[in-house]
Amino acid sequence: MNNKDNREALRIIPLGGLEQIGMNITAFEYGDSIIVVDCGFAFPEEEMLGIDFVIPDISYLKENSDRVKGFVITHGHEDHIGAIPFVEKQMRVPIYATKLTMALIDRKLEEHGLAGEIRQRVVKFGQQIILGDFRVEFIKTNHSIQDAAALAIYSPAGTVIHTGDFKVDYTPVYGDAIDLQRFGEIGKKGVLALMCDSTNAERAGFTMSEKTVGAAFDRIFREHENSRLVIATFSSNIDRVQQIITCAHRYGRKVCLDGRSMVNAIGIATELGYIDDYGDTLIEMDDLERYAPEKTVLVTTGSQGESMASLSRMALSIHKKVRIRPGDTIVMSSHPIPGNEKAVSNVINELNELGAEVIFQDTHVSGHACREEIKLIYSLVQPKYAIPVHGERRHLQAQANLAETLGIPSKNIFLLHSGDVLEMTERKAKVVGKVPAGSVLVDGLGVGDVGEVVIRDRQRLARDGIMIVVMTLEAETGRVLAGPDIVSRGFVYVREAEDLMEEAGEVVRSAADGALSADTDWNGIKTRIREELGAYVWKKTKRRPMILPIIMEVE
Amino acid sequence: MNNKDNREALRIIPLGGLEQIGMNITAFEYGDSIIVVDCGFAFPEEEMLGIDFVIPDISYLKENSDRVKGFVITHGHEDHIGAIPFVEKQMRVPIYATKLTMALIDRKLEEHGLAGEIRQRVVKFGQQIILGDFRVEFIKTNHSIQDAAALAIYSPAGTVIHTGDFKVDYTPVYGDAIDLQRFGEIGKKGVLALMCDSTNAERAGFTMSEKTVGAAFDRIFREHENSRLVIATFSSNIDRVQQIITCAHRYGRKVCLDGRSMVNAIGIATELGYIDDYGDTLIEMDDLERYAPEKTVLVTTGSQGESMASLSRMALSIHKKVRIRPGDTIVMSSHPIPGNEKAVSNVINELNELGAEVIFQDTHVSGHACREEIKLIYSLVQPKYAIPVHGERRHLQAQANLAETLGIPSKNIFLLHSGDVLEMTERKAKVVGKVPAGSVLVDGLGVGDVGEVVIRDRQRLARDGIMIVVMTLEAETGRVLAGPDIVSRGFVYVREAEDLMEEAGEVVRSAADGALSADTDWNGIKTRIREELGAYVWKKTKRRPMILPIIMEVE
Repeated sequence: MNNKDNREALRIIPLGGLEQIGMNITAFEYGDSIIVVDCGFAFPEEEMLGIDFVIPDISYLKENSDRVKGFVITHGHEDHIGAIPFVEKQMRVPIYATKLTMALIDRKLEEHGLAGEIRQRVVKFGQQIILGDFRVEFIKTNHSIQDAAALAIYSPAGTVIHTGDFKVDYTPVYGDAIDLQRFGEIGKKGVLALMCDSTNAERAGFTMSEKTVGAAFDRIFREHENSRLVIATFSSNIDRVQQIITCAHRYGRKVCLDGRSMVNAIGIATELGYIDDYGDTLIEMDDLERYAPEKTVLVTTGSQGESMASLSRMALSIHKKVRIRPGDTIVMSSHPIPGNEKAVSNVINELNELGAEVIFQDTHVSGHACREEIKLIYSLVQPKYAIPVHGERRHLQAQANLAETLGIPSKNIFLLHSGDVLEMTERKAKVVGKVPAGSVLVDGLGVGDVGEVVIRDRQRLARDGIMIVVMTLEAETGRVLAGPDIVSRGFVYVREAEDLMEEAGEVVRSAADGALSADTDWNGIKTRIREELGAYVWKKTKRRPMILPIIMEVE
Repeated sequence: MNNKDNREALRIIPLGGLEQIGMNITAFEYGDSIIVVDCGFAFPEEEMLGIDFVIPDISYLKENSDRVKGFVITHGHEDHIGAIPFVEKQMRVPIYATKLTMALIDRKLEEHGLAGEIRQRVVKFGQQIILGDFRVEFIKTNHSIQDAAALAIYSPAGTVIHTGDFKVDYTPVYGDAIDLQRFGEIGKKGVLALMCDSTNAERAGFTMSEKTVGAAFDRIFREHENSRLVIATFSSNIDRVQQIITCAHRYGRKVCLDGRSMVNAIGIATELGYIDDYGDTLIEMDDLERYAPEKTVLVTTGSQGESMASLSRMALSIHKKVRIRPGDTIVMSSHPIPGNEKAVSNVINELNELGAEVIFQDTHVSGHACREEIKLIYSLVQPKYAIPVHGERRHLQAQANLAETLGIPSKNIFLLHSGDVLEMTERKAKVVGKVPAGSVLVDGLGVGDVGEVVIRDRQRLARDGIMIVVMTLEAETGRVLAGPDIVSRGFVYVREAEDLMEEAGEVVRSAADGALSADTDWNGIKTRIREELGAYVWKKTKRRPMILPIIMEVE
């Protein structure tokens, strides 16, 4: 990429975030400068058994590390900051973000022993930072976390606006509404490309203001004055928690936070002055019993049915300090994220079983723009090119269709894939190549040591278990000294399948004998055992356990 | 249960269907007579790894087989008929059902080699059958399959109305609307208990008529006259398929069915006269290529994202006969069942990726009654006792709350669990005991041979894989002849974790040596290996693979 023409082009290289929700990370390249917008993780797909989360493959950034000028972070959600420590362990890149976002990043770096190791700079809305050939301006937006920013990325090839995750909230709980004027002003000057949040691009209308949830809380507090209230929501939704605190204060209740991430996030927000507890509304868990139940509100994690979270523990009566009692009122202040519906439903069932009332209407609004808001941003920015971001293919497609109805020619709309190199100038834009991109699986302390082979094995083990065939042979003669024995796990309850296991033993012995007398090598013996035992088991059970022959040799 | 008082009571014993959607089966007992309403299976919960489906534990019925007079089946969905063959293999119970329901049961019995083995009787709406001390009347309802019935169960202790799955459709596609008059007439005479479908008890309003989907299809056909149409829906939703055929006929298209269950179900419906194809609208797959794509409609299975179904194969371009092309229009004529959202979304993403348009608005209505319909049935029947059925706890609870608002005292509302024995007379009703009830897991050909232990092993294998430690000892001396060797699967990609595996080998050798020199017995050796290797692996990886030591002895 060294010819003159290319050096005058802007290159946009998404390294994640286009095939799934989460793992947002996009590189912008001009001349010798690279900047990276966001660096998030994703939750594993259902088939990624045992995986904790997924981070982006950043080999392209590592190869070009001398050119990488900085991370520019839009907001403090895990799908935008979660992979930062993993990347910073490999390459030290300066980080630019707004105040709350940076505080959340700080905690992550600390947890990974990186505190003080990385250059960090807190940026204010309206401020511009210079990163090599780029200038980046942070623009105030609204989202389900405070201090969310859109970015205006100025390059010699033109300006790109990246919305980050956003909604339009004319009446936010804290701080200002989205800076629509600035979007208009920059748009008026000419914008090359708009990269806009697609999450809700299939949803008609406008996302409601966060304040409407406050009204719903008010009604619930009023109608349940004799109940203890337990409200589950996202720990990062600081405005939501603020509204609960405000409502509790109004109705003379104390608020107790529960769940590690809730306590952490609200702790940070309180320190930074983003939460007002009216002096004494927040109390510690240990002080909870000093108040009558109907004078308290518990704010907990677990609104997505996460098995280890606070609300799930309450539902299963294994919470260390809280027991759900008949008469309690539980408010699910969130919608299930796709894939979590079943888990959320299970928690509701358990809470009902304990005699609690569960409320899940009107107590959540999305943090993402619906179709009318997306149209508004397009109309303010009026970009030449549209690059829908943040979402699965269906969401990107929905925004692409929307952009077309707004007059952007379809040849100027790009549905990119991770790794695509989109090269653009004022004259033209085109995908010119591909860089390595993909998912790196994190399992416990292991980063990338679990790949396709291991996952495929786990899937097979999960489905039908394993049968291990062990035998000991004399090295020189090939004589069988012990076995073959069969040990199985996850296949069948052996005590109730004695006949099956006995016959399987015979199949294995005959397979081994056959192979040995045919003077087969050991791989041949293993293959024959695998095939014959596999065929027998399939015939008898229609299952395909993993069959693992192990031969030991004795000198 | 032999004292006089009890013999005059009616006992209702649900054996499934109250803790989950599916596996509906309820016994009714009076004197020496038992009748059983429905006999369905359930799909496995997410954590039941490798399980195909779940059937009810019927040991209570087997113990009392001489008293079981018959199965009375409300309609032909799998969650109401799916377990019949498994039960009929163990006890021969006569089956009573309406025409289409019985035809679907016939096919099941055939598949299990039970054709002609069971007494079966097709019942008409309005007809009453006598089963020991019971009389049962089939009442016409509406649902997402034809020939669905509610049951009036007359016993000397009083009348119970069981709605089955139902909705109120004043303008059904085929046949009559629900027989509301008969509900009113029986109600007027006095009904002891109402067992009413709870599936949609959380949803306000009325479920729309199936005919509204016809109007949506008409619009789609009109607006996509240059596209091939692929419409995915439930194979059992015969009215839906009829509406597609009608629309296709109107717009001069041919209809081709795809997917085994679709071809089967519509085949049966056509034979019985429940489908009208206007003489020549339905064509075979092999004739499809004789028509221009925009003159055809494919009706397929897979609307729930099922991985092996027709639509998923098209989405992944592994369908044997159909390739999705840009310009194709796919209609998802169903809503994702809770738990399937992610899978459905994945299919939509893949179809979008292939350039197809995917439509999922307005092309489905539920087959279950919403709150206003439930209120209507309560008001017609005016039962003394309410026993919400069909649903998870949250749905049952929602109906219970509804029943209370309709004036049924809460002490007369019973939220039962599987196995509960609810005894009722005109004077009182009470849960008096418990019979065995629960889930039997079906995996391949195995029925009940996979239980808690096997599932727990599969879960552990799925999460972190397995490490097998093998060693051969001399029987007499305990001398190590071979090993210990470690073989792992699903734990870590061994080629990239050589150091780890090598160190693990040392840990195992030192554990074995330690145990042997301490003269430990073999169980002791195994325990020590398990503990020390487990601790090492946890420290290094924060994973807990299953550790399986195997010791072979050589004489």
